[in-house]
Amino acid sequence: MEALARRKVSADDYVDILDFYARQMHVLDALNLEAYADTFTEDGAVDHAHRGERVEGRAAMMRSMEAALPRYRDVAVRHWFDHLLIEPAENGWHVVYYSLVTRTDAEGKVDFEPTFTVEDDLVRLGNGEIRTRLRVVHRDEPAGAGE
Amino acid sequence: MEALARRKVSADDYVDILDFYARQMHVLDALNLEAYADTFTEDGAVDHAHRGERVEGRAAMMRSMEAALPRYRDVAVRHWFDHLLIEPAENGWHVVYYSLVTRTDAEGKVDFEPTFTVEDDLVRLGNGEIRTRLRVVHRDEPAGAGE
Amino acid sequence: MEALARRKVSADDYVDILDFYARQMHVLDALNLEAYADTFTEDGAVDHAHRGERVEGRAAMMRSMEAALPRYRDVAVRHWFDHLLIEPAENGWHVVYYSLVTRTDAEGKVDFEPTFTVEDDLVRLGNGEIRTRLRVVHRDEPAGAGE
Repeated sequence: MEALARRKVSADDYVDILDFYARQMHVLDALNLEAYADTFTEDGAVDHAHRGERVEGRAAMMRSMEAALPRYRDVAVRHWFDHLLIEPAENGWHVVYYSLVTRTDAEGKVDFEPTFTVEDDLVRLGNGEIRTRLRVVHRDEPAGAGE
Repeated sequence: MEALARRKVSADDYVDILDFYARQMHVLDALNLEAYADTFTEDGAVDHAHRGERVEGRAAMMRSMEAALPRYRDVAVRHWFDHLLIEPAENGWHVVYYSLVTRTDAEGKVDFEPTFTVEDDLVRLGNGEIRTRLRVVHRDEPAGAGE
Repeated sequence: MEALARRKVSADDYVDILDFYARQMHVLDALNLEAYADTFTEDGAVDHAHRGERVEGRAAMMRSMEAALPRYRDVAVRHWFDHLLIEPAENGWHVVYYSLVTRTDAEGKVDFEPTFTVEDDLVRLGNGEIRTRLRVVHRDEPAGAGE
């Protein structure tokens, strides 16, 4: 029976993971790209599954984000998360969550990017800090079509 | 004095409840209706207070949801929660929270259903799992009118 | 080494703070202004940094909120939070978080105020309850301009 039980994340780890994502999103939304890249492992990768695009390593991530910057210079971008599913894994966790992106322009008008579901492999380093090793971004599609 | 103190949910239970809602919303938003119905007790009920409609038992819930499916086939629906008020109750908790629903269409345009406040009676089963026994959905009304 | 380590909030305190914000926002969004003012310390203050406006003390807060009420009488207002950064401080915590405000009108149409970043000084009273001592509200500006 015990072997079938779902392994659970502890409350302490859950709060650490929320804190990690808060820090990661605050630096991303401030367009502090270097600090954002530092929240990934050296060999960290981001996979935009819906565009068939994979970016590997911090240096490539920096180049990819710098190329996208002009889209975000005139708006205040904010990433909102919800409904984290956290599964313990070797040296860390596999996490799946909802993501919504708001863009507020200089006049205060808010618009929205399509919603996404994100899958992360997080690792706990020897010093206790958390890093993202792999992020896979799925654009949400109508569920009805595929079923 | 002690008798007057508000009973508090523990951090472990709080995280369990967040995890339960994450699982429940992931299956609902995937239109996996059978898995969603299984997150309720056998005699579970959903009360749409603003429509004066109450659906009781998993079988009736399945029929009611199947009837509503066509509205959701062409969009990616996501339920977003916030500001959970969790009060311990017999064998579980009474929870009140905010809910916002986004619908993203095939072109990526996002629109919004009116916001809701949801009241749940949750129970902890003998095997440790959580189920919803009663969900009452209130459409948010302007607060000014009633005061 | 230890002196350099970031001080962390415990899981129990984290959940207490989430619970405090849930209660504070439920009464604010119900336009229950007196109950909202009571979630601040007697000398509590709110700083609207983007308007250069500071309101000090519960009595002044009540007057300021009553003056703003007409804007909110015909809509259901909801404040949504995310990505809390919580740093332990003397007798409490310094907290920074994202805030999004929805307004749902009588027809169910939802619109949005510009996003904000909020900074709070929270204190733990002798009886264990939490209060806000200082709230600084920053309207989110495009990050690109200043860098």
